[in-house]
Amino acid sequence: MVNVGVLGATGMVGQRFIQLLENHPDFEVTALAASSRSAGKRYEDATTWYMNNEMPESVKDIEVIETTPEAMDNDVDIVFSSLPADFALTVEKAYAKDYVVASNASAHRMKKNIPLVIPEVNPECLDMIDAQQKENDWDGFIVTNPNCSTIALALTLKPIVDNFNVNSVRVSTMQAVSGAGYNGVPSMAIIDNLVPYIGGEEEKMESESLYLLGKFDGSDVINADFKLSASCHRVPVIDGHTEAVFIELDDKFDIDDVADKMANFKGLPQELNLFSAPENPVIVKNENDRPQPRMDRNAGNGMAVTVGRLREDQAFDNSFKYVLVGHNTVRGAAGASILNAELINDKIL
Amino acid sequence: MVNVGVLGATGMVGQRFIQLLENHPDFEVTALAASSRSAGKRYEDATTWYMNNEMPESVKDIEVIETTPEAMDNDVDIVFSSLPADFALTVEKAYAKDYVVASNASAHRMKKNIPLVIPEVNPECLDMIDAQQKENDWDGFIVTNPNCSTIALALTLKPIVDNFNVNSVRVSTMQAVSGAGYNGVPSMAIIDNLVPYIGGEEEKMESESLYLLGKFDGSDVINADFKLSASCHRVPVIDGHTEAVFIELDDKFDIDDVADKMANFKGLPQELNLFSAPENPVIVKNENDRPQPRMDRNAGNGMAVTVGRLREDQAFDNSFKYVLVGHNTVRGAAGASILNAELINDKIL
Amino acid sequence: MVNVGVLGATGMVGQRFIQLLENHPDFEVTALAASSRSAGKRYEDATTWYMNNEMPESVKDIEVIETTPEAMDNDVDIVFSSLPADFALTVEKAYAKDYVVASNASAHRMKKNIPLVIPEVNPECLDMIDAQQKENDWDGFIVTNPNCSTIALALTLKPIVDNFNVNSVRVSTMQAVSGAGYNGVPSMAIIDNLVPYIGGEEEKMESESLYLLGKFDGSDVINADFKLSASCHRVPVIDGHTEAVFIELDDKFDIDDVADKMANFKGLPQELNLFSAPENPVIVKNENDRPQPRMDRNAGNGMAVTVGRLREDQAFDNSFKYVLVGHNTVRGAAGASILNAELINDKIL
Amino acid sequence: MVNVGVLGATGMVGQRFIQLLENHPDFEVTALAASSRSAGKRYEDATTWYMNNEMPESVKDIEVIETTPEAMDNDVDIVFSSLPADFALTVEKAYAKDYVVASNASAHRMKKNIPLVIPEVNPECLDMIDAQQKENDWDGFIVTNPNCSTIALALTLKPIVDNFNVNSVRVSTMQAVSGAGYNGVPSMAIIDNLVPYIGGEEEKMESESLYLLGKFDGSDVINADFKLSASCHRVPVIDGHTEAVFIELDDKFDIDDVADKMANFKGLPQELNLFSAPENPVIVKNENDRPQPRMDRNAGNGMAVTVGRLREDQAFDNSFKYVLVGHNTVRGAAGASILNAELINDKIL
Repeated sequence: MVNVGVLGATGMVGQRFIQLLENHPDFEVTALAASSRSAGKRYEDATTWYMNNEMPESVKDIEVIETTPEAMDNDVDIVFSSLPADFALTVEKAYAKDYVVASNASAHRMKKNIPLVIPEVNPECLDMIDAQQKENDWDGFIVTNPNCSTIALALTLKPIVDNFNVNSVRVSTMQAVSGAGYNGVPSMAIIDNLVPYIGGEEEKMESESLYLLGKFDGSDVINADFKLSASCHRVPVIDGHTEAVFIELDDKFDIDDVADKMANFKGLPQELNLFSAPENPVIVKNENDRPQPRMDRNAGNGMAVTVGRLREDQAFDNSFKYVLVGHNTVRGAAGASILNAELINDKIL
Repeated sequence: MVNVGVLGATGMVGQRFIQLLENHPDFEVTALAASSRSAGKRYEDATTWYMNNEMPESVKDIEVIETTPEAMDNDVDIVFSSLPADFALTVEKAYAKDYVVASNASAHRMKKNIPLVIPEVNPECLDMIDAQQKENDWDGFIVTNPNCSTIALALTLKPIVDNFNVNSVRVSTMQAVSGAGYNGVPSMAIIDNLVPYIGGEEEKMESESLYLLGKFDGSDVINADFKLSASCHRVPVIDGHTEAVFIELDDKFDIDDVADKMANFKGLPQELNLFSAPENPVIVKNENDRPQPRMDRNAGNGMAVTVGRLREDQAFDNSFKYVLVGHNTVRGAAGASILNAELINDKIL
Repeated sequence: MVNVGVLGATGMVGQRFIQLLENHPDFEVTALAASSRSAGKRYEDATTWYMNNEMPESVKDIEVIETTPEAMDNDVDIVFSSLPADFALTVEKAYAKDYVVASNASAHRMKKNIPLVIPEVNPECLDMIDAQQKENDWDGFIVTNPNCSTIALALTLKPIVDNFNVNSVRVSTMQAVSGAGYNGVPSMAIIDNLVPYIGGEEEKMESESLYLLGKFDGSDVINADFKLSASCHRVPVIDGHTEAVFIELDDKFDIDDVADKMANFKGLPQELNLFSAPENPVIVKNENDRPQPRMDRNAGNGMAVTVGRLREDQAFDNSFKYVLVGHNTVRGAAGASILNAELINDKIL
Repeated sequence: MVNVGVLGATGMVGQRFIQLLENHPDFEVTALAASSRSAGKRYEDATTWYMNNEMPESVKDIEVIETTPEAMDNDVDIVFSSLPADFALTVEKAYAKDYVVASNASAHRMKKNIPLVIPEVNPECLDMIDAQQKENDWDGFIVTNPNCSTIALALTLKPIVDNFNVNSVRVSTMQAVSGAGYNGVPSMAIIDNLVPYIGGEEEKMESESLYLLGKFDGSDVINADFKLSASCHRVPVIDGHTEAVFIELDDKFDIDDVADKMANFKGLPQELNLFSAPENPVIVKNENDRPQPRMDRNAGNGMAVTVGRLREDQAFDNSFKYVLVGHNTVRGAAGASILNAELINDKIL
């Protein structure tokens, strides 16, 4: 068993880490770090538990520690970070001296030598790690995962980009409130309403997606060369981001072929049979009213993205449209970091 | 005062007609038609009232009649139709022999000689009426208004099409449940959820918009020649459709110029000062989290469309994006028919 | 393995039966009956699946049969009924000639010799079965479970009634929309709203609770002699009924003693270790903002009722208040019938 | 015209004051006080406007001042306070030296010589003002209104208490999220959920109601002598508190008589024809599924309380039940203070 820690352990994504790591065959949660307000308390006493199932017994008595590497026992190998971006900026580097940091924070995404990875999409970027360790003289390293809405989109784009020449992508999102944290979206803002703006989200989707679907030349990532534009919106849904995608290819295509390539897409996690890897990263549904967040967010234990309404776009040449749903705090956050760590544990540690 | 009737008077759009016509300076509701189950009853007794304010006193005692021209008094001039499409197909023609039929039904939209009109967008199509009357030997005629999501989109596209060369439009909608009628969307389908499909909606948006923004050559409409693709979705909002719009122009543009043209757009109803015409058909907001359905649907008494998040699209040349909110059962249904009738009353009757 | 059938198999409670019976150690679903519209089709083809997890593979290919005993194979022993009350009235009797009918329908509740049972509350009522079989000359029999809101209430009242002298109970409910069936509550009725009326619900709660907590004298049930009044309301929650309970005792009491009696309450299903029996039928929470439907409805796999806010009622002598949450379609419907069948299978078959 | 100020002007109740005071025939808003962060800015620039209709033109350019009497112009006569309770405790007294303070804050409710008033219920308590002024040597004074859920309840109890001998009242509430302020209830807490706890609410309802329905002996209030118990819960509704009420009388009664007394109840504001007074403070509906918050909260411009489901309670002697809906931020907050000020303006100033 690999001992792991969670940074930001009392927050909503921190709790999701703990929930997903319960009964993990390779990882055991032994360290929980949070703000100094929580440090020193039993985890159960420090935490208002937001998950729908009960807090795992195994973490209740763990004493919460401060979010500093010095507070961490040496027998921890991997720390999962769900820290706020500004705090992560300095803290994750401090941990990286000695620990593997699998981070869901945006602080270090797309920085030189710090891999931004979805294991099914661009696992080769883990090769950056050597350079990162050398450059910083670290024993550990940082690996990051993308933004929640990006992950779901990129997973569905990967089999398309691999098999067709993509000219352009436009995506309009309908995102769940959990993406903003427990207190992020007031009920006054979202009951009988929606909010057509999520700060920084469109920029993240546009830049991260092209990086993930680009090429790693052994030293740098060369972004994919298609165009991608996003419009991001918050809707009254607890979990599960929905995205309406418009795709234009360079060439003629067969829509059944697209469906086929998506449905049969497998990546390295499936090949390696990683614990959190869904059997199919992309599930294609034929019912015309799917995917729906409440019905489909838990597909593949929340690690699969469900695609539906895949159809030719009659208005444009060589174009098609689809809708996807992905679980934003599982595949789009904690589960993403865990799958990264599983890949690292299998290939590197 | 012009006496008017409402067909489908007990339904949700029928009730919206009655609500909007209360205190109308030119129109007085004197006839209410509904199914034979309701016929013969007082309107108040026949109706489960769904509107948020009280049923107008003036209609409570009106005896509901059957939906047939024979049941209608001769002193009625205009009938508003919120009939289901299949029923409207035959019934509206029967009424058109003697009455002006201002229809919100889709049955006769875009048919030869039957105008599909938004008064601010293509009032010239009312010139079809002569041919319609001659062709059918009718004293009355049928005029239709577009689908709810189309109206809001077309109103915002009009000042763009008039001032710029539009190459393509993609629109992703987040539509209110009232658009499906009172019983249309079960709560089980939409709480903590959304439904990424609305039957026929995308086809209507795509075809009606190009018609409305096309050219009437005196006999036929030549569709606008840009490309338009829609993806339509239902969200947990009572009233107010939200639409995320991606626009590609043929040429360079200035984004402030687009905002300016939208904000200052006026049409014939504004010029004629029609009773239901909003001062500005399109309101442009600068706050980055607007428009929101609960906050903006009632702008201009529900007859204005609110645009926000107007921004350049960095991913594409000559492109910009925006979000709009329009009230789907006011400007998008009953209010649309009433404004058509006001224009007809002013120009033709 | 006992072969079981489900009547009303394509409906929402029918689907819940199938979901809960997947992987059941003693029961295997081999017969699925529905309306003649569905009969003859594969279950997967006949059904719009509403559950959040996938349809079990084992039922997809079962051919749906008509809802008549003649269509049923003889090797079925138990049929679960989620039929509408009016249809259940005649059909369940026809099945009872040959089959054990565990019914969630209200048709035969509290009828002479037909047990209305919650296994933790009044298992002794199963002794009515002999008389029922003799009276009707049936090989099978009917056993019913109470209304969803009654079950949750009665489970929490049982340890109180057993240990204290209850004078009166008043209960105000906040019930989930799933209780009305998939199409039962339009979204227009419940978004930013609630409906303070559920037809027949108050009468069921008031009469069924007194029966369940009464005494079976070997031939008839003598109702409990305290007073019980209910006010029932529908709120925008998918699953999980919440009930605010006001209790007046005849005597002084200690509030910790009440909590203790509830938390340690066990019934026959716990003693017999029945498969669907929760470890504790009533869970008592101390956090002041619990129970909440989304957080607590799945306690004990949906078979436990969670109580919180247990507090003395300062306004009245010998009085206390609490709030409960129970899963209305698991413990309150399909799970209730299954637990009844498990008890019957253990004690009678 | 009387010049009035609003304390806490940028908050949600502050905005409701401004909205309700637009076009008021007697009051003109000339001073807006808020935190030092807002002071010095134009009101429009200092405020994120949460109301559904537009910010009144008349307040946009008012310069926000600090919340201290020194910052206020002398020509203001009445200040409306929507300050947080702890801040109100000291600040309102400072204003009371020179101004009439009509407060929605809970800080001074039920204190000696400070009237807690609903104009239809206990206007005689305004007679405390003389003693208050003398005791403190103030030129102004403080008058308070009750908690939102109390006001709606007390208005419906008043005609009952006046006409029948009430023995006990139990009330279970389903309260709107706006009652907690814009950021008070996270969407994560309330979508597909409810929260069965509102801090301090039950205590306020129980104590304030007995005060309001008690007797003022010229010096002190002697509480009403019936028993009243509350259980308070938050549901996913924007505006409009719903309350299920169980009432036990000492004597036999006729349910139609109760309905009649409620429906015909009028108080001093109706007699004086105060501007914000609804024609009927209590509206009684016969439809069995009313009142509903979205449909009934705006009755009487949000100043009337709607009662429905008035029915005998079969379980108890001399008992009945009903459900009420009242607008929590109009009649239950800003509108309550304004009506108090109108009464004061009519009778005292």
